[in-house]
Amino acid sequence: MVKRIGVLTSGGDAPGMNPAIRAVVRKAIYHDVEVYGVKYGYQGLMEGNMSKMDLGSVGDIIQRGGTILYSARSEEFKTDEGQQRAIEQMKKHGIEGLIVIGGDGSFRGAKKLTEKGFPCIGVPGTIDNDIAGTDFTIGFDTALNTVIEAIDRVRDTATSHERTYIIETMGRNAGDLALWAGLSGGAESIIIPEKEEPFQDVCDRLVRGHQRGKKHSIIVLAEGVGSGFEYGERIKKETNLETRVTVLGYIQRGGSPTAQDRVLASRLGAKAVELLINGNAGRMVGIQNNKLVDYDINEILSLKHHINEDMYNLSKELSI
Amino acid sequence: MVKRIGVLTSGGDAPGMNPAIRAVVRKAIYHDVEVYGVKYGYQGLMEGNMSKMDLGSVGDIIQRGGTILYSARSEEFKTDEGQQRAIEQMKKHGIEGLIVIGGDGSFRGAKKLTEKGFPCIGVPGTIDNDIAGTDFTIGFDTALNTVIEAIDRVRDTATSHERTYIIETMGRNAGDLALWAGLSGGAESIIIPEKEEPFQDVCDRLVRGHQRGKKHSIIVLAEGVGSGFEYGERIKKETNLETRVTVLGYIQRGGSPTAQDRVLASRLGAKAVELLINGNAGRMVGIQNNKLVDYDINEILSLKHHINEDMYNLSKELSI
Amino acid sequence: MVKRIGVLTSGGDAPGMNPAIRAVVRKAIYHDVEVYGVKYGYQGLMEGNMSKMDLGSVGDIIQRGGTILYSARSEEFKTDEGQQRAIEQMKKHGIEGLIVIGGDGSFRGAKKLTEKGFPCIGVPGTIDNDIAGTDFTIGFDTALNTVIEAIDRVRDTATSHERTYIIETMGRNAGDLALWAGLSGGAESIIIPEKEEPFQDVCDRLVRGHQRGKKHSIIVLAEGVGSGFEYGERIKKETNLETRVTVLGYIQRGGSPTAQDRVLASRLGAKAVELLINGNAGRMVGIQNNKLVDYDINEILSLKHHINEDMYNLSKELSI
Amino acid sequence: MVKRIGVLTSGGDAPGMNPAIRAVVRKAIYHDVEVYGVKYGYQGLMEGNMSKMDLGSVGDIIQRGGTILYSARSEEFKTDEGQQRAIEQMKKHGIEGLIVIGGDGSFRGAKKLTEKGFPCIGVPGTIDNDIAGTDFTIGFDTALNTVIEAIDRVRDTATSHERTYIIETMGRNAGDLALWAGLSGGAESIIIPEKEEPFQDVCDRLVRGHQRGKKHSIIVLAEGVGSGFEYGERIKKETNLETRVTVLGYIQRGGSPTAQDRVLASRLGAKAVELLINGNAGRMVGIQNNKLVDYDINEILSLKHHINEDMYNLSKELSI
Repeated sequence: MVKRIGVLTSGGDAPGMNPAIRAVVRKAIYHDVEVYGVKYGYQGLMEGNMSKMDLGSVGDIIQRGGTILYSARSEEFKTDEGQQRAIEQMKKHGIEGLIVIGGDGSFRGAKKLTEKGFPCIGVPGTIDNDIAGTDFTIGFDTALNTVIEAIDRVRDTATSHERTYIIETMGRNAGDLALWAGLSGGAESIIIPEKEEPFQDVCDRLVRGHQRGKKHSIIVLAEGVGSGFEYGERIKKETNLETRVTVLGYIQRGGSPTAQDRVLASRLGAKAVELLINGNAGRMVGIQNNKLVDYDINEILSLKHHINEDMYNLSKELSI
Repeated sequence: MVKRIGVLTSGGDAPGMNPAIRAVVRKAIYHDVEVYGVKYGYQGLMEGNMSKMDLGSVGDIIQRGGTILYSARSEEFKTDEGQQRAIEQMKKHGIEGLIVIGGDGSFRGAKKLTEKGFPCIGVPGTIDNDIAGTDFTIGFDTALNTVIEAIDRVRDTATSHERTYIIETMGRNAGDLALWAGLSGGAESIIIPEKEEPFQDVCDRLVRGHQRGKKHSIIVLAEGVGSGFEYGERIKKETNLETRVTVLGYIQRGGSPTAQDRVLASRLGAKAVELLINGNAGRMVGIQNNKLVDYDINEILSLKHHINEDMYNLSKELSI
Repeated sequence: MVKRIGVLTSGGDAPGMNPAIRAVVRKAIYHDVEVYGVKYGYQGLMEGNMSKMDLGSVGDIIQRGGTILYSARSEEFKTDEGQQRAIEQMKKHGIEGLIVIGGDGSFRGAKKLTEKGFPCIGVPGTIDNDIAGTDFTIGFDTALNTVIEAIDRVRDTATSHERTYIIETMGRNAGDLALWAGLSGGAESIIIPEKEEPFQDVCDRLVRGHQRGKKHSIIVLAEGVGSGFEYGERIKKETNLETRVTVLGYIQRGGSPTAQDRVLASRLGAKAVELLINGNAGRMVGIQNNKLVDYDINEILSLKHHINEDMYNLSKELSI
Repeated sequence: MVKRIGVLTSGGDAPGMNPAIRAVVRKAIYHDVEVYGVKYGYQGLMEGNMSKMDLGSVGDIIQRGGTILYSARSEEFKTDEGQQRAIEQMKKHGIEGLIVIGGDGSFRGAKKLTEKGFPCIGVPGTIDNDIAGTDFTIGFDTALNTVIEAIDRVRDTATSHERTYIIETMGRNAGDLALWAGLSGGAESIIIPEKEEPFQDVCDRLVRGHQRGKKHSIIVLAEGVGSGFEYGERIKKETNLETRVTVLGYIQRGGSPTAQDRVLASRLGAKAVELLINGNAGRMVGIQNNKLVDYDINEILSLKHHINEDMYNLSKELSI
């Protein structure tokens, strides 16, 4: 059985990375496995920026946003030499397996290390919810609640004036954050990369609502579709309705993780330790239909995360 | 096809009842079905306290706690006469089916009406998460986040003094709220009705943590187990550690619903309308393994909701 | 003594307008004075869009963002004819005095009506805190807490990456919101219209912090100074540091009012009723050095609100 | 001029102690004065539990609840020997002055040290707002917002059922927290130690509201008056109305400090450093009528903090 493992966070950070780190450390110690925390992701890995963690290292972090191990992007690690350096550092520290918390970019690194003979397990942590093989990624629920809180605030002022508000959410090429936020925020229209809604339909719906005496309209737009500001301009031009745009930006990445994200992070972090202990390598843990699952990282990277079609259709029906 | 349906909320209220009402109204109107909103639950039903709802009736309620239809308990409705009165009122108003949002007590009423020939569909709305046939009830996620926010606050002061804090949560006879809150709040011990943890084990864990230099310990206790105050006294007597007790009480019932609760409420509310439209009766909608399901209410009422054993075990491992 | 008064909200809405309306209504009823609520500001006033309010009209609104009376801007009201129409409508409804909750634009309207013989009292409600004669306007404290919550979230992700974050706040030509948010958010630099900080100094401070190993830098910039995006570009060009910009926009206008805003709104609303009852006209109520005050609106409109110089200097000293 | 000062937090902790510590450290360093942070209050002081702080020591703490220096109570320090030990420890570390952040109990210690020739400055930090010589103490605004958030949640469920809710707040012998929370929470009755409202009046008001069709009534009761549970029993017995009691307890002590508390903490912490630098001793800093002030600690300890009578009267008028 492995005696010592490493853990790092990589790529864009997400709320819930800290409870994931906490679960990794505590679950490992529970099984008498030592844990080294690597700072600044793969960059720190190559530089040997790592140290032993104990129960106290993860005390009072379950509620903290961000990641106590910091994150970074590294060009050097994409090279063979970089990956070799990383493996050497881990061997030097007696580390026999690595848990990587991050998104698909980070998993590509985990895959490379595994291919070079060093066992890695991936834990999906990103607010974008754009990873195949898991219904939810760590950070998605928190970001989602941040977005709907913003929508609720805009709605307060929206009920006082008669305007169209456009909220641009993160999500890279994925529409999950915008879809869930739009449905739970009661948006009139949800514009996401996965679905091409004719621009004219969006405008017609706005005008119809306006004529019915609606106090306001809210449109949630995923960044993957394009700029909220430009979309607002187009709408104004077409409908002559006044528009206001809010680009939420990086506030979506922060905040204390929600209960769902803490539970998910705890479960996935612990599961990753189990996999390493049991001799697995090159796998990603996830949750599907409420059950913990794990897949080959290669498979995950070749697949696409899909939106929930029923929810998209429901959002259409409820926003008549 | 039905032309007119009713909707009411009953029993203890829960955050998310409003988005459920909204979904019922909008989904019905989408299918050209009229909706009557009944105020004050079954009591209002017997008294004919109901009126037609339109899109505007459910405007800007998706983010509101409580229920715009109010709730009430009614002894009279438990009698045959009461149920007969309710059916007469609905017939008088041309209502052909009823959607009941509430907990198991409310479902018993729905079952009675269905048995008397009036089709009802139940939508599980309670913070207790104690209904069989659904992984989650509407309101659970919001209450859970309210509890962990309270734990986080206590933790702030707990890191400044050296004490044992006991948080008593709601949940009636179910331990879900305490279990999820304990796991996501990083509690040292979780005391729930479904599991008998020897009192001595809880004390030993506390003393061990104290000796290890832990700044504080947090115990989450479900109300179904007994009084938090009494538990605190027992611990103090046994361990000589100072204890502080917080009884969260009714704040767990309020607050703006979380994204998860709004999405769940929207999906279940819409599904209930579909069932009524398709001629179903005496069924409860739910979500299991991320899929919408529906069951015979009789079956639901004869079964017990179970806690997630894996999560309970995980909480033990992570709180070493 | 007056027997019937009117109340309206005008201009950009602000959290706390609802508790102000509530205080006006309840204080008036306490003194046996009737209150008519005017919808959509001066526009509604001209159109006679008003109705009697009772205790129930303001039930459960103390915690609500926005304004239940809605707000609007009106070009027509700026004309003599418009003002005359408004006065006629009020006379028709037996209204003898008007309370206007809003910013300086709204007070100009109140001034005009008073000059035409119709007594008005202004209550300062705007998130911008840009009104002379009062230390705080209703809505400022809530908007401020919204901004620092956003800064806190950005800080979470900022501690995980090494970047410079720029937060653009509202405030029109005033720097109060940015100053208070910067001081309470622990920003490295605060850029406001009232103070010209040499651009080179801002850059030097950033570079110095970066060299000292600072994980991140946060700059709060008031919209009155210019675009956050452009500022970010300039910094990047000058310092070569990576920058990220968040434009908070309309979320600053919403949200449940804070305790300070509710208390301030309650006190100012009640005071305005007292002034009307006692035969005053053309005055604005405010709070200065913790005491309720009132000034001639003409005087208020001729003066400028100033930032607190001590706080600005303190922010410099603490951000070394 | 002093070259090295110490800072500690003592007594019950309060949100805002961290930004106060941060301001002390940064302001001192700005003036080239070294700062030693003392852990666990006076207990740590006697034990020499202190170490030098730099800019990094107070990085990212401005938003954190609790106190990074921890707090403790100490019986030993109340003796002459204890105080002598503390002074010896400070001399040993070259510390020439001490800043004590806490409540009146903590100030008594500061007074003793000053009398023994060691200059101390007090900074009022307590959620109770029960210190003379300052309009507000650090932590009060945050605790106040925590209470009204709880009231808002209870109100959600209160609008769904017809009940009387009793909220018991902290505040020791002071009624400020209950008064401000009651006024900003829209409570029907506010029961505080400073005012004896006849019990019968409270009951009459409840019954009157109930008869008028009020959906709910909220009573805010300061812990200094007695137990909320007992009060609830008395009301039920007298009026036959159903009552529900929530004892908020320690959640009032935690949470991220509000903007007001962060600004107040920053200003008072910096002011305390100025006083020490300028050779003062035995003084407490405070804010009165928006201006920074300082008083002799002896004077402060001999005076009583008073509630704002106007606000109390206003609360009566608005809760008709």
